[in-house]
Amino acid sequence: MLKHDPDLDRVFQALADPTRRAIVERLVRGPASVSQLAEPLPMSLAAVVQHLQVLEGSGLVRSEKVGRVRTCRVEPAVLRRTEEWFAGQRTLWERRLERLGELLADETEEKEEKEEK
Amino acid sequence: MLKHDPDLDRVFQALADPTRRAIVERLVRGPASVSQLAEPLPMSLAAVVQHLQVLEGSGLVRSEKVGRVRTCRVEPAVLRRTEEWFAGQRTLWERRLERLGELLADETEEKEEKEEK
Repeated sequence: MLKHDPDLDRVFQALADPTRRAIVERLVRGPASVSQLAEPLPMSLAAVVQHLQVLEGSGLVRSEKVGRVRTCRVEPAVLRRTEEWFAGQRTLWERRLERLGELLADETEEKEEKEEK
Repeated sequence: MLKHDPDLDRVFQALADPTRRAIVERLVRGPASVSQLAEPLPMSLAAVVQHLQVLEGSGLVRSEKVGRVRTCRVEPAVLRRTEEWFAGQRTLWERRLERLGELLADETEEKEEKEEK
């Protein structure tokens, strides 16, 4: 019965931390090296690297090492898929409101018909 | 430097679990009692109640007890706010692509001007 999407588990888990969201918010503006990412963050480089590992595990971020520099990029497709989950819920919710609106309209109509008789 | 939004922490934490997402997906279709929510889930009622407590703590779900029945509802405003976080990231990402496109166009133009001279 449960449609289990382990990717969504990992993405939401990754985003449940303010440092990791700050890293994603930085990377949507463009790629950055690990030390550039660490620079404004109030923690050790090792802590930043751990957060990056969680982000890479979720697919939200990928990185590539060239020489001594590891450059990180965001994976917009993963953000988009996650946004779609929310859009899906919104659609279902809006359909529900529409149905309620129709029910209400039908009831009002029936009531008016009865009153006319 | 970190804009810490503890609400987003809790919402993402709540959604990082497939049972809790299934509960949200059920509730966007309409309110349900705790036992209705538990019925299709392969776990004890106590486990479902625990998941509901996490969802209520995040603001995604609220519940009300009338007589002996506790009815749960989704809080669409919280879903909407979270969806907006993703939309914000997408906007930043799209702006970046636009800027890259403009840079590329400028470079092509400069190159063509040089070749004409």
